[in-house]
Amino acid sequence: MSKVGIIMGSKSDLPVMQDAIDILKGFDIEVEVDIVSAHRTPDKMFDYGKNAHKNGISVIIAGAGGAAHLPGMIASLSPLPIIGVPVKSSNSIDGWDSVLSILQMPGGVPVATVALNGAKNAGILAAQIIGTSDSCVLDKILAYKEGLKIKVNESSKNL
Amino acid sequence: MSKVGIIMGSKSDLPVMQDAIDILKGFDIEVEVDIVSAHRTPDKMFDYGKNAHKNGISVIIAGAGGAAHLPGMIASLSPLPIIGVPVKSSNSIDGWDSVLSILQMPGGVPVATVALNGAKNAGILAAQIIGTSDSCVLDKILAYKEGLKIKVNESSKNL
Amino acid sequence: MSKVGIIMGSKSDLPVMQDAIDILKGFDIEVEVDIVSAHRTPDKMFDYGKNAHKNGISVIIAGAGGAAHLPGMIASLSPLPIIGVPVKSSNSIDGWDSVLSILQMPGGVPVATVALNGAKNAGILAAQIIGTSDSCVLDKILAYKEGLKIKVNESSKNL
Amino acid sequence: MSKVGIIMGSKSDLPVMQDAIDILKGFDIEVEVDIVSAHRTPDKMFDYGKNAHKNGISVIIAGAGGAAHLPGMIASLSPLPIIGVPVKSSNSIDGWDSVLSILQMPGGVPVATVALNGAKNAGILAAQIIGTSDSCVLDKILAYKEGLKIKVNESSKNL
Amino acid sequence: MSKVGIIMGSKSDLPVMQDAIDILKGFDIEVEVDIVSAHRTPDKMFDYGKNAHKNGISVIIAGAGGAAHLPGMIASLSPLPIIGVPVKSSNSIDGWDSVLSILQMPGGVPVATVALNGAKNAGILAAQIIGTSDSCVLDKILAYKEGLKIKVNESSKNL
Amino acid sequence: MSKVGIIMGSKSDLPVMQDAIDILKGFDIEVEVDIVSAHRTPDKMFDYGKNAHKNGISVIIAGAGGAAHLPGMIASLSPLPIIGVPVKSSNSIDGWDSVLSILQMPGGVPVATVALNGAKNAGILAAQIIGTSDSCVLDKILAYKEGLKIKVNESSKNL
Amino acid sequence: MSKVGIIMGSKSDLPVMQDAIDILKGFDIEVEVDIVSAHRTPDKMFDYGKNAHKNGISVIIAGAGGAAHLPGMIASLSPLPIIGVPVKSSNSIDGWDSVLSILQMPGGVPVATVALNGAKNAGILAAQIIGTSDSCVLDKILAYKEGLKIKVNESSKNL
Amino acid sequence: MSKVGIIMGSKSDLPVMQDAIDILKGFDIEVEVDIVSAHRTPDKMFDYGKNAHKNGISVIIAGAGGAAHLPGMIASLSPLPIIGVPVKSSNSIDGWDSVLSILQMPGGVPVATVALNGAKNAGILAAQIIGTSDSCVLDKILAYKEGLKIKVNESSKNL
Repeated sequence: MSKVGIIMGSKSDLPVMQDAIDILKGFDIEVEVDIVSAHRTPDKMFDYGKNAHKNGISVIIAGAGGAAHLPGMIASLSPLPIIGVPVKSSNSIDGWDSVLSILQMPGGVPVATVALNGAKNAGILAAQIIGTSDSCVLDKILAYKEGLKIKVNESSKNL
Repeated sequence: MSKVGIIMGSKSDLPVMQDAIDILKGFDIEVEVDIVSAHRTPDKMFDYGKNAHKNGISVIIAGAGGAAHLPGMIASLSPLPIIGVPVKSSNSIDGWDSVLSILQMPGGVPVATVALNGAKNAGILAAQIIGTSDSCVLDKILAYKEGLKIKVNESSKNL
Repeated sequence: MSKVGIIMGSKSDLPVMQDAIDILKGFDIEVEVDIVSAHRTPDKMFDYGKNAHKNGISVIIAGAGGAAHLPGMIASLSPLPIIGVPVKSSNSIDGWDSVLSILQMPGGVPVATVALNGAKNAGILAAQIIGTSDSCVLDKILAYKEGLKIKVNESSKNL
Repeated sequence: MSKVGIIMGSKSDLPVMQDAIDILKGFDIEVEVDIVSAHRTPDKMFDYGKNAHKNGISVIIAGAGGAAHLPGMIASLSPLPIIGVPVKSSNSIDGWDSVLSILQMPGGVPVATVALNGAKNAGILAAQIIGTSDSCVLDKILAYKEGLKIKVNESSKNL
Repeated sequence: MSKVGIIMGSKSDLPVMQDAIDILKGFDIEVEVDIVSAHRTPDKMFDYGKNAHKNGISVIIAGAGGAAHLPGMIASLSPLPIIGVPVKSSNSIDGWDSVLSILQMPGGVPVATVALNGAKNAGILAAQIIGTSDSCVLDKILAYKEGLKIKVNESSKNL
Repeated sequence: MSKVGIIMGSKSDLPVMQDAIDILKGFDIEVEVDIVSAHRTPDKMFDYGKNAHKNGISVIIAGAGGAAHLPGMIASLSPLPIIGVPVKSSNSIDGWDSVLSILQMPGGVPVATVALNGAKNAGILAAQIIGTSDSCVLDKILAYKEGLKIKVNESSKNL
Repeated sequence: MSKVGIIMGSKSDLPVMQDAIDILKGFDIEVEVDIVSAHRTPDKMFDYGKNAHKNGISVIIAGAGGAAHLPGMIASLSPLPIIGVPVKSSNSIDGWDSVLSILQMPGGVPVATVALNGAKNAGILAAQIIGTSDSCVLDKILAYKEGLKIKVNESSKNL
Repeated sequence: MSKVGIIMGSKSDLPVMQDAIDILKGFDIEVEVDIVSAHRTPDKMFDYGKNAHKNGISVIIAGAGGAAHLPGMIASLSPLPIIGVPVKSSNSIDGWDSVLSILQMPGGVPVATVALNGAKNAGILAAQIIGTSDSCVLDKILAYKEGLKIKVNESSKNL
């Protein structure tokens, strides 16, 4: 079965990244969470990036802030689809550095970037990727989208 | 076999989006290309978004510029992973509008955004997504990454 | 008599959008308020956009934040004048995404954009539009502008 | 019959503003074009703003660049709906000054702002405003939108 | 004797503008303070701008926020040197709109712009302008600058 | 008689700064032009800043680009009013660095900043400052403003 | 033995700059701290910049905010490597002015710029510079980097 | 003797980075130039970063554009001072991504960042670092600064 690797540059990113963990668990998708810092544990990052696809991981979600190099470096090392979450960390300039240093990857090495602090969407995107080959997950996504609609309609009634 | 849908808001986006077509063809992945405008052909967009996953499409790449609503609206309508390409079109403010109106999707509806004009990376990302369930495509991606390395090493020798 | 449709992408936009409701009620103009999400209720949005001009609505005010597609999509679907209110929602990058994804519409599909969180001005603008064919409303606007002047002059006296 | 006033801060804005003139003529709506500079002809601007609604004008389109005060000052003086066109003039910082000094009007005095250099959309918006009380113009807008769709579909066929 | 006119678009700007009043009083320069809104009291603004140089005013300090048109419009109307203070008001986008709509005046109509919320510097600049023809004021400025130096040196000693 | 000192950080700034020279000559105001670099000739800058007011200079116009320190440093050294011209030099990031490093001076040390490349306005502002104590120059400014109006009116006639 | 000079434009910068002092003390490197303001104590700055390399200082760390001229002016006056710390001071526009006015130095006069409020990194960088000729300091840096790794691994275990 | 390592992410960065090579050769400092891509040759980058200080290199200059991870990753791997040159490459958004992804490094891992395309200053900074322990290089820097002064003075004479 497919497994999603969720890594982040610092434990301080966990409150943001928890949304990805929660949504994937809600889809009954297995997650493996770790702290991997591009700048402080480069060897660990190298091992992680090179071996994830051999360790049963299908998709990697990587969150980081400021000059955020983790998602792009993992994308350099792994053949898997990498989802980058720009985190608005305390040392970030309003999030612009996080967004641009994850999004603007050179040709050849993509990172699937989601919104600033958008870890929930990273989780959904990982599920959608798994859903391309797992119709059971695809059905859960269709149901999830139906749920979004219902919640809006209810809030509409209570105006 | 998996198929990638490539759509764009205007024919003027084709020179940018062609990179996605070319790289996917290089990976022997079938592509289906169309012009679908969120603002000028909303009905066509609705049909496209609602039915793509029923028509054999696994991943959708959507490119648009300015107030770029196509990728996000397709993400609203389809359960598939949607890759958004912000295009630096002539009416864009240095590309910032294209990037922000594709990237900053609300929780629940992700768009996997790549760099400004990064259609090539959109194609590679689509291949990586297909590679999560197709080991043959995964091998091609590993070979592609090896090729990137060789090209850099050659340019290094010729310094 | 003319009626103004006021819609927003999420109930969390209501505190901002309430200013539009209040000012229009102050002008004795009928309003119809609803939650319509481009990304979570696309079908409802389609129905709304296509039928508003048949349902007695003259002007539509649409508020949304982040990658804000509601005003532009309604403008795609409806022949009415659409006023867009960029909302500085919690997931917005200082409001820049809200502003640019509403303002920078492509040629052919205008959205009359007001200032960030400028729902009050959206309401006044809707009244001005109605005032182009309703001299009674035009007179109220002239009186409203007179009132603005008087308030400034009073604050000037109390310096 | 309704008439649209089109003014701009400098004759150098005419190449951009011509799009508004052309599209309104295409809708058979009368236009009155003039150069009115907030900073160089303040008296003329005052007369224009105070009297437009008495001179048969229903909607005003005002274009300006840099520290663009013309649309906002006309909005201060006139009870009519004012459409502002931010022009990317030679002295502008990539258009940001033009956009922000037109868009960010204080509560009480709206300017309906369109995209940078979006004079064509300003014209369409003026027509939509007139269309709120003139069903013949409304029908032309519906036809215009239909035309946009047909052009996209044709470009789609020729891929 | 020279007099400085200090005006602002709204009473809510007074906490910021008070710095200009205080510093000028510290230099024993007469000030005349008023609320003059470009958008809500355009007639008052016209009278003020056209007549200030006839009413004994030598320099005008004008503060405003958001789409801040007051300094530029006064510069349009008056032959005096106009000092503009961009105010970071509640409706401003981080002050960028205030700064750009005051600073980026077209050729022919300058506004001497100071830093965001820099009313203190506006007052000093007004004193420096008066000092160009009043050696007593020039001496006070030299003494003021000497005082700045002493304060830094003291803070240095207390490290 | 009053004299205006015009300095710039590099000879490459001269094409921009020439506008200040020309307009002041048109007002028959004496100018003294020099190259003074904050970063390459700090001693010359110190002498210039400390002595300008003893050498018959009434107002200083300083132009520089990139990390533009010349206007602020001269303001630190001289009691005269300093006008800063942000130059969009080749090493500038779209002019933002030039603007912010001149405009955002700390409390106590103002620089009267004009628009990006706004040397013409710097010249007019210098003349306005001289005009506060020289009614002959004031009359020329009134005439100049009249001339601006006439030119706009002519361009209006030739539409 | 090598000594690091740490200066800042205002005592209010000390809470940020303290990180540089602390980290250098942790490396047993001597520091000399002072308040030196480019704009309020230009003479002191001149003396400091011209003589630091004669007074046993090897590296200078200079912190400042807003239109931050201290690092660049010290770089103009001293042949030593200058490390600039952009401080997000209260008068700064989100730190952009601090960053750009320190980073964007013209060719010939470098400032080694670190992240916004990045005084800790300024201290480490100063140690690294000293480490280029002092193998004992180099070893401490290697140990420091090892410590960073250990801390991440521990936080990883405690997930 | 000290040696400077100069690396860049792509051969297309060489025209910008050549300035660093040239200025260091002018100081008779040995340079070693190579292409090392963080994203395409991560293994080579790892070897380079981990071993540079063992191979006689004292300072590393790393240039890259877009999501520029090379300088920060080398700083992660090496205890040497790393100078980062943000390159305005063709895929960059006006250079902002290059600047922010190099400058905004997290606490613990500094990169000495110079101006956008500021390779010349990177070379001078490397020489200054070597000059902290090599008085002969320090003298050359003093002479270089003297040369800058002379050139400005000559350009001043030729006005």
